[in-house]
Amino acid sequence: MTLERWRRITEWPLIVASVLFLVTYSIQVIVDPKESVGALLEDLLWVSWGTFLIDYIVSLVIAPRRWHWFFTHLFNLATVVLPMLRPLRVLRVVTLLAVLQRTAGRAVRGQIVIYVTGASLLVVYVASLAVLDAERAGGGSIATFPDAIWWAFTTITTVGYGDLVPVTLEGRVIAVGLMLSGIALLGVVSATFASWIVEQVSAENTSRQAATVAHVDALRAEIAELRTVLARMDPALRATDAKAPPVAEPDGPDPSAAKS
Amino acid sequence: MTLERWRRITEWPLIVASVLFLVTYSIQVIVDPKESVGALLEDLLWVSWGTFLIDYIVSLVIAPRRWHWFFTHLFNLATVVLPMLRPLRVLRVVTLLAVLQRTAGRAVRGQIVIYVTGASLLVVYVASLAVLDAERAGGGSIATFPDAIWWAFTTITTVGYGDLVPVTLEGRVIAVGLMLSGIALLGVVSATFASWIVEQVSAENTSRQAATVAHVDALRAEIAELRTVLARMDPALRATDAKAPPVAEPDGPDPSAAKS
Amino acid sequence: MTLERWRRITEWPLIVASVLFLVTYSIQVIVDPKESVGALLEDLLWVSWGTFLIDYIVSLVIAPRRWHWFFTHLFNLATVVLPMLRPLRVLRVVTLLAVLQRTAGRAVRGQIVIYVTGASLLVVYVASLAVLDAERAGGGSIATFPDAIWWAFTTITTVGYGDLVPVTLEGRVIAVGLMLSGIALLGVVSATFASWIVEQVSAENTSRQAATVAHVDALRAEIAELRTVLARMDPALRATDAKAPPVAEPDGPDPSAAKS
Amino acid sequence: MTLERWRRITEWPLIVASVLFLVTYSIQVIVDPKESVGALLEDLLWVSWGTFLIDYIVSLVIAPRRWHWFFTHLFNLATVVLPMLRPLRVLRVVTLLAVLQRTAGRAVRGQIVIYVTGASLLVVYVASLAVLDAERAGGGSIATFPDAIWWAFTTITTVGYGDLVPVTLEGRVIAVGLMLSGIALLGVVSATFASWIVEQVSAENTSRQAATVAHVDALRAEIAELRTVLARMDPALRATDAKAPPVAEPDGPDPSAAKS
Repeated sequence: MTLERWRRITEWPLIVASVLFLVTYSIQVIVDPKESVGALLEDLLWVSWGTFLIDYIVSLVIAPRRWHWFFTHLFNLATVVLPMLRPLRVLRVVTLLAVLQRTAGRAVRGQIVIYVTGASLLVVYVASLAVLDAERAGGGSIATFPDAIWWAFTTITTVGYGDLVPVTLEGRVIAVGLMLSGIALLGVVSATFASWIVEQVSAENTSRQAATVAHVDALRAEIAELRTVLARMDPALRATDAKAPPVAEPDGPDPSAAKS
Repeated sequence: MTLERWRRITEWPLIVASVLFLVTYSIQVIVDPKESVGALLEDLLWVSWGTFLIDYIVSLVIAPRRWHWFFTHLFNLATVVLPMLRPLRVLRVVTLLAVLQRTAGRAVRGQIVIYVTGASLLVVYVASLAVLDAERAGGGSIATFPDAIWWAFTTITTVGYGDLVPVTLEGRVIAVGLMLSGIALLGVVSATFASWIVEQVSAENTSRQAATVAHVDALRAEIAELRTVLARMDPALRATDAKAPPVAEPDGPDPSAAKS
Repeated sequence: MTLERWRRITEWPLIVASVLFLVTYSIQVIVDPKESVGALLEDLLWVSWGTFLIDYIVSLVIAPRRWHWFFTHLFNLATVVLPMLRPLRVLRVVTLLAVLQRTAGRAVRGQIVIYVTGASLLVVYVASLAVLDAERAGGGSIATFPDAIWWAFTTITTVGYGDLVPVTLEGRVIAVGLMLSGIALLGVVSATFASWIVEQVSAENTSRQAATVAHVDALRAEIAELRTVLARMDPALRATDAKAPPVAEPDGPDPSAAKS
Repeated sequence: MTLERWRRITEWPLIVASVLFLVTYSIQVIVDPKESVGALLEDLLWVSWGTFLIDYIVSLVIAPRRWHWFFTHLFNLATVVLPMLRPLRVLRVVTLLAVLQRTAGRAVRGQIVIYVTGASLLVVYVASLAVLDAERAGGGSIATFPDAIWWAFTTITTVGYGDLVPVTLEGRVIAVGLMLSGIALLGVVSATFASWIVEQVSAENTSRQAATVAHVDALRAEIAELRTVLARMDPALRATDAKAPPVAEPDGPDPSAAKS
């Protein structure tokens, strides 16, 4: 079995496992259910984890260049080790949806916007769950889910009021992850606007637009036509040559060489 | 009646309704008037809301492709549901003003600057009103209008001192909106500077400027001229050919045709 | 007297007045001197203000299109009304220094870096003085000059710890100014890096560089040479024509027309 | 001995001295060892400092244009004066590693990402050590190494909760350095995304790509071929001319010259 086929087969099971993890973990943290239900949820989390672990091991075994795969798929390893990253798999679905909108021109930016919005909301949601889980146990000031969501937004936007602050090691690690996501978010937003403005500014004045491949192709077409004109002239010339005294032209095959 | 015509008709009534909402809501929150005046203001808010609702319903009914219109006009739906977004309609006037300045080259960036400045100030103002409305009732630390304005500025710039922090759900939702506006603001500012610097750097050294459509057009003109020269030569050559069979050249006017 | 000449004459007096203001205000706020010295400093501040006021009025009177000058020189009005903006005049000197470094290629970015660094440090310094002046009187937590500098840095970088926060209206207005400067600073830094990276990426692979005006000029030179070759052929053709039966070419001047 | 050779010789000793400084300072601050070990560490720090001092003095003496070298190597002076900057030398190693990955297209952005990530982590680590060193002595709220790391991350990301804040002058200077690094970090992240998005958008639609040097070169090749065709025609024409005075064509090798 090839790696490519394995990836196609595991695509949907992994998304389902991601959603399973997301739902189970949400119930576990927000509802905080009784013993029996809690044990069931715990089992479901293990099933989700197992799915990711099996996919990782099989992929690593199948991969033709194992070390290369290992280094280029560190994110996959991270989703096995850090359950928090697992829901990011759900973004695959977002990508599929993005493919549906076919407006060619703005597609790249549109996809980036959809993907970044989706990823940011997922990161905020999962980080809220995780920080609540960690801080409630550690006795921090983040004690309810709405508080956790509020805290996550103030962190990812780098506002950082400081009214709610994680105090446990786990909570702070999650916070640092959120802050770095915030920097990435800001970077992508700036970059997307920059790409859009550059396009607007050049679109405004057509003659000041950057020359594109299409323009160069148009030029090439004109030059090709020139050559056709010349080629048409060429036999005309040869006819002229033919009239010339047969002796005085030792390099007669030259015109035909020009054609080749 | 077409959608286009309806839009032209409702343009100004909607701007008036936005201003009406802005003024009425400002008085209601800042002045906090007595019973009788308060009831009048409440009525005016309903009138403003009614204008937006009627516009939305009529537009949806008139629209040729109803679902398409629905999905591409989610912002219009939002202005009906979330009164806070309604004042953004006033920005239409800002856009009209921006059209007045006709400096072609810098127009796009100039319009972006005017629009973003206008939108940011409006967002800060309306968010201050809304947060004051919510927090005063919820017993938060934001108790006066100057405090609310100060808080809104520390939030939209992502500074977030934390001296004033919303504690109600409504206040926090408004705060998240402000934070996201702040990220957008920063993105637009960065992007506008980036577009300007790229232009400056290339303007500095003419020979290092990106080739523009104007340059390609100049090239094309030269190639076209070359072709004209060749076209004029062509009959000349044919004339030479003509010498071979001395009689046969009825198409004498050809050169003049080539000239046209 | 023309506006241009007036500007040349007042260039240095205004820079001197800016420095005078900066030094005087610094002594007044940081040293907080006794009655007699304080009165002298107050007089010097009035002299500085007078210089700016006279320059503004004379410029407005001299200007050929008074309203146009008024709207395009709102910053000059601001330096008269808001003394805090006056020291920004000193940046003129920075610009002059920047001209000294003549490395053409990186000059624009180099100048932007020098100017923005200079402006940011000046803004931080002046805002620290102003906020200390305002808060000390208003009983805020910002009580010493090092505290004010520290607060200014946490604000302009949008970090906003919140350990020191202005509480007076004046202090908060200065704070908002600093925050907006911070957004501008971040925007310029991002944009400068963006311009640099775009240049690096294209420099890496020469064949993937954007075509520049220099390249188009090289192409044009080649086409021009082609035309020269054709022009050389043209008389050759004419010679051929000349040989043709004298009767059969009524449009003899055609080749010379082709040359024009 | 030339400056270039000295630089090659001192490359590795300086990196070793950086690592020595980093390890020694880490042990000194985090472990806070007893008298005898502490004295040894202090000696090692002096050795590290000595290496940098000697390198600086020798380089300055060797340099052909001493003042020019002085002004263009202010960073080297800073690493002698400010020990905190010394570990940044280690980044040289990161650069060497980056050279190993040879994927030409994405190399510049890849190198920037690796370098910036490395530099940011080093800056956070060293700033944490330094701030802990300063604040512990000054009685600030940053008392443990994990607290210092947490504070450094909230500062470099410009989140600034304010739960931990430096109060000593030294700590605040380090904090300002971190904040400025944060702005630079954000700028580089935005710029890298911007460069990437601009590339994606243009890659999406080939005909809308900017014309590159490669395209212009292709055009030039076509024009050159046109010229060859014309050059081959030229002698043919001249041969026609030659028919006029039948004898005179001594320059027979001309066509072959035109061909070369």
